[in-house]
Amino acid sequence: MEVKKLTQLLTAFKDGSADLEATLTSLKHFPFEDMGFAKVDHHRALRTGYPEVVFCQGKTHDQVIQIFQALEKHNDSILLTRAEPDLFAKLRKIADRLLYNETARTISLEKEEREKTGSVLVITAGTADIPVAEEAVVTAGISGAKVTRLYDAGVAGVHRLLAHNDQIQQARCIVAVAGMEGALPSVVGGLAPCPVIAVPTSVGYGSHLGGLAPLFTMLNSCAPNITVVNIDNGFGAGFCAAMINKE
Amino acid sequence: MEVKKLTQLLTAFKDGSADLEATLTSLKHFPFEDMGFAKVDHHRALRTGYPEVVFCQGKTHDQVIQIFQALEKHNDSILLTRAEPDLFAKLRKIADRLLYNETARTISLEKEEREKTGSVLVITAGTADIPVAEEAVVTAGISGAKVTRLYDAGVAGVHRLLAHNDQIQQARCIVAVAGMEGALPSVVGGLAPCPVIAVPTSVGYGSHLGGLAPLFTMLNSCAPNITVVNIDNGFGAGFCAAMINKE
Amino acid sequence: MEVKKLTQLLTAFKDGSADLEATLTSLKHFPFEDMGFAKVDHHRALRTGYPEVVFCQGKTHDQVIQIFQALEKHNDSILLTRAEPDLFAKLRKIADRLLYNETARTISLEKEEREKTGSVLVITAGTADIPVAEEAVVTAGISGAKVTRLYDAGVAGVHRLLAHNDQIQQARCIVAVAGMEGALPSVVGGLAPCPVIAVPTSVGYGSHLGGLAPLFTMLNSCAPNITVVNIDNGFGAGFCAAMINKE
Amino acid sequence: MEVKKLTQLLTAFKDGSADLEATLTSLKHFPFEDMGFAKVDHHRALRTGYPEVVFCQGKTHDQVIQIFQALEKHNDSILLTRAEPDLFAKLRKIADRLLYNETARTISLEKEEREKTGSVLVITAGTADIPVAEEAVVTAGISGAKVTRLYDAGVAGVHRLLAHNDQIQQARCIVAVAGMEGALPSVVGGLAPCPVIAVPTSVGYGSHLGGLAPLFTMLNSCAPNITVVNIDNGFGAGFCAAMINKE
Amino acid sequence: MEVKKLTQLLTAFKDGSADLEATLTSLKHFPFEDMGFAKVDHHRALRTGYPEVVFCQGKTHDQVIQIFQALEKHNDSILLTRAEPDLFAKLRKIADRLLYNETARTISLEKEEREKTGSVLVITAGTADIPVAEEAVVTAGISGAKVTRLYDAGVAGVHRLLAHNDQIQQARCIVAVAGMEGALPSVVGGLAPCPVIAVPTSVGYGSHLGGLAPLFTMLNSCAPNITVVNIDNGFGAGFCAAMINKE
Amino acid sequence: MEVKKLTQLLTAFKDGSADLEATLTSLKHFPFEDMGFAKVDHHRALRTGYPEVVFCQGKTHDQVIQIFQALEKHNDSILLTRAEPDLFAKLRKIADRLLYNETARTISLEKEEREKTGSVLVITAGTADIPVAEEAVVTAGISGAKVTRLYDAGVAGVHRLLAHNDQIQQARCIVAVAGMEGALPSVVGGLAPCPVIAVPTSVGYGSHLGGLAPLFTMLNSCAPNITVVNIDNGFGAGFCAAMINKE
Amino acid sequence: MEVKKLTQLLTAFKDGSADLEATLTSLKHFPFEDMGFAKVDHHRALRTGYPEVVFCQGKTHDQVIQIFQALEKHNDSILLTRAEPDLFAKLRKIADRLLYNETARTISLEKEEREKTGSVLVITAGTADIPVAEEAVVTAGISGAKVTRLYDAGVAGVHRLLAHNDQIQQARCIVAVAGMEGALPSVVGGLAPCPVIAVPTSVGYGSHLGGLAPLFTMLNSCAPNITVVNIDNGFGAGFCAAMINKE
Amino acid sequence: MEVKKLTQLLTAFKDGSADLEATLTSLKHFPFEDMGFAKVDHHRALRTGYPEVVFCQGKTHDQVIQIFQALEKHNDSILLTRAEPDLFAKLRKIADRLLYNETARTISLEKEEREKTGSVLVITAGTADIPVAEEAVVTAGISGAKVTRLYDAGVAGVHRLLAHNDQIQQARCIVAVAGMEGALPSVVGGLAPCPVIAVPTSVGYGSHLGGLAPLFTMLNSCAPNITVVNIDNGFGAGFCAAMINKE
Repeated sequence: MEVKKLTQLLTAFKDGSADLEATLTSLKHFPFEDMGFAKVDHHRALRTGYPEVVFCQGKTHDQVIQIFQALEKHNDSILLTRAEPDLFAKLRKIADRLLYNETARTISLEKEEREKTGSVLVITAGTADIPVAEEAVVTAGISGAKVTRLYDAGVAGVHRLLAHNDQIQQARCIVAVAGMEGALPSVVGGLAPCPVIAVPTSVGYGSHLGGLAPLFTMLNSCAPNITVVNIDNGFGAGFCAAMINKE
Repeated sequence: MEVKKLTQLLTAFKDGSADLEATLTSLKHFPFEDMGFAKVDHHRALRTGYPEVVFCQGKTHDQVIQIFQALEKHNDSILLTRAEPDLFAKLRKIADRLLYNETARTISLEKEEREKTGSVLVITAGTADIPVAEEAVVTAGISGAKVTRLYDAGVAGVHRLLAHNDQIQQARCIVAVAGMEGALPSVVGGLAPCPVIAVPTSVGYGSHLGGLAPLFTMLNSCAPNITVVNIDNGFGAGFCAAMINKE
Repeated sequence: MEVKKLTQLLTAFKDGSADLEATLTSLKHFPFEDMGFAKVDHHRALRTGYPEVVFCQGKTHDQVIQIFQALEKHNDSILLTRAEPDLFAKLRKIADRLLYNETARTISLEKEEREKTGSVLVITAGTADIPVAEEAVVTAGISGAKVTRLYDAGVAGVHRLLAHNDQIQQARCIVAVAGMEGALPSVVGGLAPCPVIAVPTSVGYGSHLGGLAPLFTMLNSCAPNITVVNIDNGFGAGFCAAMINKE
Repeated sequence: MEVKKLTQLLTAFKDGSADLEATLTSLKHFPFEDMGFAKVDHHRALRTGYPEVVFCQGKTHDQVIQIFQALEKHNDSILLTRAEPDLFAKLRKIADRLLYNETARTISLEKEEREKTGSVLVITAGTADIPVAEEAVVTAGISGAKVTRLYDAGVAGVHRLLAHNDQIQQARCIVAVAGMEGALPSVVGGLAPCPVIAVPTSVGYGSHLGGLAPLFTMLNSCAPNITVVNIDNGFGAGFCAAMINKE
Repeated sequence: MEVKKLTQLLTAFKDGSADLEATLTSLKHFPFEDMGFAKVDHHRALRTGYPEVVFCQGKTHDQVIQIFQALEKHNDSILLTRAEPDLFAKLRKIADRLLYNETARTISLEKEEREKTGSVLVITAGTADIPVAEEAVVTAGISGAKVTRLYDAGVAGVHRLLAHNDQIQQARCIVAVAGMEGALPSVVGGLAPCPVIAVPTSVGYGSHLGGLAPLFTMLNSCAPNITVVNIDNGFGAGFCAAMINKE
Repeated sequence: MEVKKLTQLLTAFKDGSADLEATLTSLKHFPFEDMGFAKVDHHRALRTGYPEVVFCQGKTHDQVIQIFQALEKHNDSILLTRAEPDLFAKLRKIADRLLYNETARTISLEKEEREKTGSVLVITAGTADIPVAEEAVVTAGISGAKVTRLYDAGVAGVHRLLAHNDQIQQARCIVAVAGMEGALPSVVGGLAPCPVIAVPTSVGYGSHLGGLAPLFTMLNSCAPNITVVNIDNGFGAGFCAAMINKE
Repeated sequence: MEVKKLTQLLTAFKDGSADLEATLTSLKHFPFEDMGFAKVDHHRALRTGYPEVVFCQGKTHDQVIQIFQALEKHNDSILLTRAEPDLFAKLRKIADRLLYNETARTISLEKEEREKTGSVLVITAGTADIPVAEEAVVTAGISGAKVTRLYDAGVAGVHRLLAHNDQIQQARCIVAVAGMEGALPSVVGGLAPCPVIAVPTSVGYGSHLGGLAPLFTMLNSCAPNITVVNIDNGFGAGFCAAMINKE
Repeated sequence: MEVKKLTQLLTAFKDGSADLEATLTSLKHFPFEDMGFAKVDHHRALRTGYPEVVFCQGKTHDQVIQIFQALEKHNDSILLTRAEPDLFAKLRKIADRLLYNETARTISLEKEEREKTGSVLVITAGTADIPVAEEAVVTAGISGAKVTRLYDAGVAGVHRLLAHNDQIQQARCIVAVAGMEGALPSVVGGLAPCPVIAVPTSVGYGSHLGGLAPLFTMLNSCAPNITVVNIDNGFGAGFCAAMINKE
């Protein structure tokens, strides 16, 4: 709870416009709606300009739909990640203007189109990394960032990356997505004058260990301007990139 | 190599002010000085405002001193990390105005004091995490950021953290440093309206696995605004925080 | 074997009411019924008030049914965990009054309703952790505890948890269930005046490692009042919570 | 923050005995003393009867001494764990009535002797596990529990354990400490009518993996009444055992 | 190649009954039949009394059938492990007297019944470990051992094991099969006057790690008379047990 | 980019046959064709005699087909690895002269048959390792090497390997493929006068860890002439073997 | 407890030569002597011919000496493993006829020389594996086995092993000790007509993982007659080998 | 044993110039000298031009000296790796013309200087990787290769590497040595027309895992011309590079 809100609550209590019980209740119940199986946040004023997000994996369709309906009343933009096509088929029956990105597995709702600003560049090492990259692209976009894609630019053919150096120089934040050995962020980090968010993917086999290999590659990078998110976490990378881009 | 530099080189070649051999040589030898055991970069124009950095661990004292001397001719600010006291004792004999932070194990040189801007907040979960946090503080500072410390605010006593919520609300970027279970960034991430860089530390024992436990905690955080650096990598966190702070 | 039982056996042998062979046989065969593929315990006097439990995973339906029938003759309450719906469909044909909790995947039999006492609080970090939590709820309940649920109260929105602080203060034992980064028990442990049993779940992806990430988070917690059970082991947590609640 | 304390603060504010600024300050600064490198808690009313605890590992001697002095003013019992002999030598110069347990590496202060109640049994599998067990013994004792030791009763000679079955039957909580294969808690759990807290130790070699082997053994135990703490965490086991013992 | 065989070959060469080329050929091609995708051994005189064994997993049905047919010409007993029912259905059409053990997933052929000797005891901790145990039982049996089963005697109910102590005392070799925490061999090893072969199984969940948990438990056992085979390797345990039993 | 090409570009620019814009464009776009989701290399002059390769796993059929069509215009030989039968069914409709190796899961195109030279020997430890070995055979063959197979020659029957010692002595490079314990390369390395490329396979179970066990075996080999590729990476082994064979 | 002993106790109780209390005492205290920090076994009749063993690592010198003195009164042969020279220096002052094997780090006492029987062969892959092998040699010897050494016979020079094939053929049990890749047991197992006990050692570096690499190699061996003990556990291997040798 | 040698032995036996016993003896004892703790190979004709090598780690100084003396009688070049300065101090007293490379920790003896041929390029990512690289340089050199060094050319400053592209184009084999994230070989592999041997080093910290991070990076490389050796195994890389260089 922020200091400002606390001050308002206390002042209302003192001047009699709220009694003790009501004040305590406000402190407890104000910021979210309790649905039993989920507590849905409203009015997350702290982060203006970002969508409400639902991570669908591990939730039943019914749970997702109820959460969506609660959010839809109070929010202008909503993002559902890890959403399979059949969930989308159900949701579109009860809601208009939903967009489904099949590659990214995202469902998004933007009640009114906002102008996109800044410059986020999303790079992948290979073609198979594109689904994770697209999740980042969708997330950064709905969070207000202008996004450019640069796909299949892995370092085993480093000229493919160098040829797009001008895009690297102009970005405010770069998302570098790579499976296999995950070396892309190290080379990008050495070229880029901005923060690079590295996303390891589960694309690979054998000693790739489901993405742990590129994850460790990225965490151990010699380039100083690299931070890392979880394996396949295109959402987190896109969200952070939009936040950095906005600053 | 940037397009602009390449354009200059090619133009000089075309108008005769540089011949073929000289142009090839420029392309090869321009950006660094070769010392045999190290290739020292100069004029890293892309990242104005950041120090040149030497990671001392694994290098002999003689190697560090030679690298320092090469850098010192061309740079206004230099940072040496993982520097033990006896290395500092040697270096201070050949260079003025060096500062040694014993907790952070850093040696820093700023030829002229720059104004610090913005707001980076460095939080630790415990007292034993302070050395890593100090490395972040020194690095962010020499890279131009105004830095605030908030130490020993771990989540097992969450009121210690909540009491400083105003600092969290005002930061442009937060560095959250934690060993043991590494839960601090998740709570901070939920409160903060800005990017949080999580730094796991090797402080712990048993199933802590030298810092892998808090590392995985941070990578799996539910908060969307968290990215992670390597265990004990206070330098990387401070560098990225300064970069985000500057944008 | 307890001293008391051994004393009885020896006394019966000495006073002639049991001969040598019979005494040896008693020592061997008394406490369980041998079914070849399973040895079913009866009269577990030591733990009055707890159900007999069958872990169904890895057993054939026929084996479970035979074990159930052997137990049903001698016990007032029986709990089957990791039970799929088709197993329940078979069992209900041969037994009355069975309850199936589809979320928890438990089948339970209580011949006569017992009064529930004390106060066990079961908290989850997210919605997807509910199946494991429900296994704990069912187990603690059939073991005699009064149980309260508090779901989707993860620490990345710490106000959701703080709003229910009064429930935390009133519990005799808390079960804290969390996947992803597993930070919930650390914050709960810092608030609670009672023992907290932490249950990591397999809810997550990437470096979550099937639940090892939250498991290690919980084992490394700074809060002193936390103990941990195996990943997804709602049963064990519920059983121990009931035992602590009863003391 | 508890509801009761919050109510008091709000009431004082309303009736004018505290102004807004003071109330906010109380909310922020009340529960701990900020020493820069550490935030020391006072008046942890929630857990009456437990000592304040300092984990010394990773802190400098000066830091520990300052924390001790801050705690000593407000608390009746203090426990320092992972304390080496030379730290004790320094502390005894500035404080009376300190006790040092060399095997447990604990320093403890009890201003007045309290009566010990209930029954906690601490069992070790081998002789080399005793230091961890002693940390549990000291911790449970200073937290108010009557403690009994049963050492070197590993399951490879199961008669050594069975011979003490009466002690197992009478305990309210058992701490089972084992390195090597860590099988002790499984057998104890099968015999005991009370909760068993399992403590893996780093005693072993080869595939023991610094204690991970017995840790996983204990987490996978078939006995339902077992919970686990971190490797070598005698303190946590002793603290929880005392808490369960008290209920 | 044994010295005796080499001597015979050399003598035949010297006395002219074999020329150089033939001798070299013998050295190369004598001991096995080359089928391109497999090299089938015949006349493994060194290990009289053991069956030829085919590990079916990873081989196509056609490959197994061809290998079986090559073996069947020269051997009195053949064992196929990891054999699924449909493979058995194919094989029984081309061969008589095959036995299929569905639990063990073994197909066995014994052209004439041999007397079984000695005493191998196969113990399991739980019901779900029986398939692995049955593979050991079938293997030890076809290798000439008299085998006794003792199933569901895990250490969390140690009286179930102690009740069969006489069987343990009379065995020449014991195979102890356990999933979950894998503590069974430690207790058995402490009781048994003979070698114990420990078999971890993949029965378990969570931190069980597919059987690594009980594997490490067994490798770290304090009992001195325990050796270990791979997870689920009932075949290897049964083979070695028969070999030890025969000595 | 090679020096030679750079020299040509610069000279063309200087003598006016190319202007600045064209030169920059050449530097950027020359070496590959951008398809959005993939950047296809042409004219990889550096490695004459090797096919263009497409790793199909993780790509959609449409993506593979478009890449194939782009490559087919400029290349004489193309290799597709990890290609399932249904992909082959689609491709053969749009292209002639494609060969499918079902065991290796490769599709290959050689526009004109080249003479195969040198001597690469591919050995497997078992029958189940053959699919990986066949991928190596196909790759080395299309890369110009004469290849010999030696299958099912594992070291647990070391005479099977020794019988083919002459083949080992005559090879210019050996590919040794093994799952299970992966000991084959150590023995082959000790016998062979040439480089041995070791390929661990995922053939095994239990503590085999999906191929990590033989991978570590091979990396730790005492034989000095062994290098290792990723688990199941028959392609990489075949490619490197052909390269060594050609030198 | 064996049936025979139990029968004697019960009979003595019945015929009045022992009263109830004495009988219970016998059942509890008979088999070991309680020293507080250790419970020392006497008269382990079940395993006639084997020494009492003390694992010194993790015990203080005083503890070892007291245990030794307790054992020395009742036993003819005692073995102390992991014993450093300074412990031996202390022990020899209070006991005669102790032998110290510096390579094996064992102290052994045999009150009267027994005839050694059978044939145990101990093989090492390299020179650095000898300390572990010597522990096996000493243990098997004091347990009654005739032992032969064959050192530095690793499989990267397989002729060194084959040259000693006659020794392999004549052994009743083989102990195969190997660090690095640990391939030795697979080749030995293929040659030997007897059980092979594989001992991985911590000799190696890098991906050797402190012995886990050869441990997994051995567990995954294709040879059917191999069982495995813990890393560096020469004692366990020697003990089991003697037991198998004796049968 | 090669066919040729076997033929000679058999012919000598047949024509009477060797009797049966002598022939068997030859087969057994010919290829090495048995020193008890080591079996020293002589006349390794198969690999002409390579030194005899002694891995000193884990051997006593006396053992190394005896092995060296045995080798020195029959060989023209000898290489001792992992040799500490004090071992060199001892050896130089008994042998002439020994060279010690302190960085590589190698002692080498070349009785007569051989001409070095071909072209092996050894690249490091950083300065701290030089010791491992030097071991490769020394090994490749004594094995007959002409070697060039290119140090501190890591990919986070990719221009440092590209500037030396001509050296990369001219090499017959490249050794790429890298700690930290280990991305160097991927970029080098993409540029080089020859085989690249990747050597991970233990240079790094945190999630670097003692070199496992770069090891997995290299194994998962997208570049097809890369094979990998063990962490810090400069010797193996240098040996294989020389072998490839010679072909």
